[in-house]
Amino acid sequence: MFAELLQNVRTSHPLVHSITNRVTINDCANVLLACGASPIMADDPGEAADVTAGCDALTLNLGTLDQRRIPAMLAAGRRANELGHPVVLDPVGAGASPLRTETALRLLREGKPTAVRGNMSEIRALARAGGGAHGVDADRADRVTEETLDRAAEFVRQFAARAGVIASVTGPIDLVSDGVRVFCIRNGHPMMGLVTGTGCQLSVLTAAFLAANPDRPLEAAAGAVCALGLCGELAHGRLTGPEGSGTYRVYLMDAVSRLTPEQLEKGANYEVR
Amino acid sequence: MFAELLQNVRTSHPLVHSITNRVTINDCANVLLACGASPIMADDPGEAADVTAGCDALTLNLGTLDQRRIPAMLAAGRRANELGHPVVLDPVGAGASPLRTETALRLLREGKPTAVRGNMSEIRALARAGGGAHGVDADRADRVTEETLDRAAEFVRQFAARAGVIASVTGPIDLVSDGVRVFCIRNGHPMMGLVTGTGCQLSVLTAAFLAANPDRPLEAAAGAVCALGLCGELAHGRLTGPEGSGTYRVYLMDAVSRLTPEQLEKGANYEVR
Amino acid sequence: MFAELLQNVRTSHPLVHSITNRVTINDCANVLLACGASPIMADDPGEAADVTAGCDALTLNLGTLDQRRIPAMLAAGRRANELGHPVVLDPVGAGASPLRTETALRLLREGKPTAVRGNMSEIRALARAGGGAHGVDADRADRVTEETLDRAAEFVRQFAARAGVIASVTGPIDLVSDGVRVFCIRNGHPMMGLVTGTGCQLSVLTAAFLAANPDRPLEAAAGAVCALGLCGELAHGRLTGPEGSGTYRVYLMDAVSRLTPEQLEKGANYEVR
Repeated sequence: MFAELLQNVRTSHPLVHSITNRVTINDCANVLLACGASPIMADDPGEAADVTAGCDALTLNLGTLDQRRIPAMLAAGRRANELGHPVVLDPVGAGASPLRTETALRLLREGKPTAVRGNMSEIRALARAGGGAHGVDADRADRVTEETLDRAAEFVRQFAARAGVIASVTGPIDLVSDGVRVFCIRNGHPMMGLVTGTGCQLSVLTAAFLAANPDRPLEAAAGAVCALGLCGELAHGRLTGPEGSGTYRVYLMDAVSRLTPEQLEKGANYEVR
Repeated sequence: MFAELLQNVRTSHPLVHSITNRVTINDCANVLLACGASPIMADDPGEAADVTAGCDALTLNLGTLDQRRIPAMLAAGRRANELGHPVVLDPVGAGASPLRTETALRLLREGKPTAVRGNMSEIRALARAGGGAHGVDADRADRVTEETLDRAAEFVRQFAARAGVIASVTGPIDLVSDGVRVFCIRNGHPMMGLVTGTGCQLSVLTAAFLAANPDRPLEAAAGAVCALGLCGELAHGRLTGPEGSGTYRVYLMDAVSRLTPEQLEKGANYEVR
Repeated sequence: MFAELLQNVRTSHPLVHSITNRVTINDCANVLLACGASPIMADDPGEAADVTAGCDALTLNLGTLDQRRIPAMLAAGRRANELGHPVVLDPVGAGASPLRTETALRLLREGKPTAVRGNMSEIRALARAGGGAHGVDADRADRVTEETLDRAAEFVRQFAARAGVIASVTGPIDLVSDGVRVFCIRNGHPMMGLVTGTGCQLSVLTAAFLAANPDRPLEAAAGAVCALGLCGELAHGRLTGPEGSGTYRVYLMDAVSRLTPEQLEKGANYEVR
C-alpha cells in the first residue's frame, strides 16, 4: 500500500504552500523537492490566501511564531478549506508559552486542519491546553515507549476523534490515528533528534502525501511517517568513521530523494490497532 | 574572457548587500563567500540604505515577500542607484499572487536594477504583468528548449531592451541579454532543480560578478550563469552510490568554492546571438 | 579543565533560547544539538520572556536586525537577568549602520549580558560607539596577529572590565577576558571564514557552556572558543580531493557532534595572561 502512496507523490508533484518557521524553512523546501513535490513559502497576509489558491496543500507551522503571521495562517487556512485542500498543522512548541499554545488551539479550531503533526508534549499541551514543553523537543516523560504504548495509543486515538483530525504524533514509537484506527510505527532512528527540523520536514511531507492521496488520509499520514523514519534508518546505515550529525543531515535528505516505492513498502514497520 | 571575470571577483572581494527571502538566505551568504565575495544581509528600513552605502552591490529578492521589507528594498535601491552600485532584482514567484507581481513591477520601475534574474515564468509575468506561476519554479510550458529557443531568445532580448536591464533568464537553456546581444548558455544540470535556491544563489553571484566587472555588465551576468551552471555539472560528476539531493547541494557549494578561472574559461558553454 | 566544561554541557543538556538572525538560525540550532544542548528560537515580543523563563540561557544576536525584535530582546534579557540565566550578546555588524551600533550598545547596557562575543571590528565599534565594519567580517586592520597581540589583549581586557562582561573576541588569534585575565587562543582554521555563521555558532555554544558551568564563566567562554576552533581544525584535516567550503561546513558540524572531552582537553591551544 505505501508503495502506491509514495508513487502518487512522485507522479503528481503536489505544490505545497508552507507558512513556517525561520529555523527549518530551507530544509522543508528541500525535503519537498526531494520527495517529488514542489515548495512555495509565502506568509505575508497580503498574499498568503492567493498563493494557497494556486497550491495543492497547506502547512501551518508555529515555530519562531510571529504574531503578524497569524492572520496569514488564518486566511490561508480558510482558503484551503474552501478549496478542499489538505491542511497540516504543526504546533511547534505548544506549551512553551501561552501565546504559542493559544495560537495552536486557535488554528486547530479555525484552520480546520486535516492533520496535526507534533511530538507528544505538544499534542498533550493542546489536549489539556496548558503544560510545559521542554524546548521544542518532547519531554522525556512524554516519550512513547513499549511500556507506555497502550495508553499513548488510546490517548492519540481520542485526541484525533475529539479534534476531528488525523493525529500524527512522533517519538521513539510514532502513533497516527484518525480517531478509529491507530498506526503504531517503529521506523526512525534516534539520530534524527540530533538534527533540527526533522519534525517540520515530516509535516510538509505529510502535506505532500495527503495532497497526492486524497482518498486515504490516514494511510497517507502514516506513509509519510514511515517514509521519513525509514530514511532516518537508511541515513544512519551509511554513517562511517568521523561522520556525525552534519553528515547525517545530508544523508537523510539523500535518502528522501532516492527512496523508491518498493523500499518504502518493504521497510515500513508498523502495526494497525 | 570568463576567466578574467571570475578572477576579478576573487581579487576584489566585493561586499554584496542582499535583501532576500528566508528560505535560501543562508545559501546566498555561503555562495558569496565561496566565490570570493562577502555577504551582508540587512533589511530593516531603519538601516537598509546605510548598509547599502558601505557595500559594492545590492540584490533584491522577492521570495517570502514581507510587505514591511518593501520600503527597505526601495530605500536601498535608491541609495545604490545614487552611488552607481549594480542592483540585481530576483522577482521570485512573480505571477504567484497580485502582491508579488505588483511588487516586482514596482522594484523594476523604481529600483532601477542593472539586471533582472529569474526563470521564464517570472519574466513572462513581468512582461505581461499577470499570468500564473507554478510555485516558484518555471511552468513547463515556459521551459526554454532547442525547439523554442529562437522565439525565447527574441523575447528575452526585447524584454531587456524595453526594461533597460540585463535580463538573465534561467532554465534548461539560459538566456542573458542586454537588449542587443543574447548569450545562449548550455551549462547546468537538471539536478540543480532538486535543490531549493540555486536561482537565488545565481542572483547574488550575478551581483558579485557585476560589482567586480563594472565595464562589462552583459558578460559579467553571463559569466555568473556559466559559473554556477558549470559548478552544477561538476557537482553532478562527483555523485556516486546512494548520494542524492542532499549531497548534491554540498558538492555544488564545494564546486563554487574551488572553481578556477581556467576551469570556467574552458567549461563555459555558450553562443552569442 | 576544558574536558569537564564540555562534559557538563553533554550531561546537563542546557536549553538555550536564541533571538537571532535569519541567515544562520538553522546552524545555531544544529550546533546546539550537536554539542548536547537543546535549542529554542522565539522572538515575538508576546512570548519571548515567557520562553526565556523556561530555558537555561539566552543568546541575543543582532544579525539581520529587525526593529520589531528589539522589544523581545529587551524583555527576554530582563527575564534572564531576574532568573540569573547567562546572557550572550553577539553584536553582529555593529558599526555597519547607526541603528545596528546603537542597538548593540543598548543591549549591552540594558540586557546586562554575561558575555559579548564578536569579532574585533564589532567590539571596537562598541568601544568607540562608531566606526565602520566591512560587512559582518572583521576589517583586515582589526585582525589580531602575533604582531598586534599585546595591544589587542590589553584592549579586550579593558573592554571587558569597563563593560562588566566576559569579552570573547574572535579572529586569527582569539581573546577571551573577564577584565582581569586574558585567554589567548590559537585554535581554529582560516576555512572557518569561508562558512557563514561560525561566529553565531560560537555565540550559542558559549551560552551553552556558560549555562552548564555557572561557577566558571571565563573558563566556560574560553572553552567554547577552543571547542569550536578545535572542531574547525579537525574538519579541515578531513578535507580531501575536490572538497571545498560546502563539505567543510558539514565536517565542522560532525566534529562538534563527536568532540570528546578528552579531545578538547588535549587539543585546546591557549595561554592565559
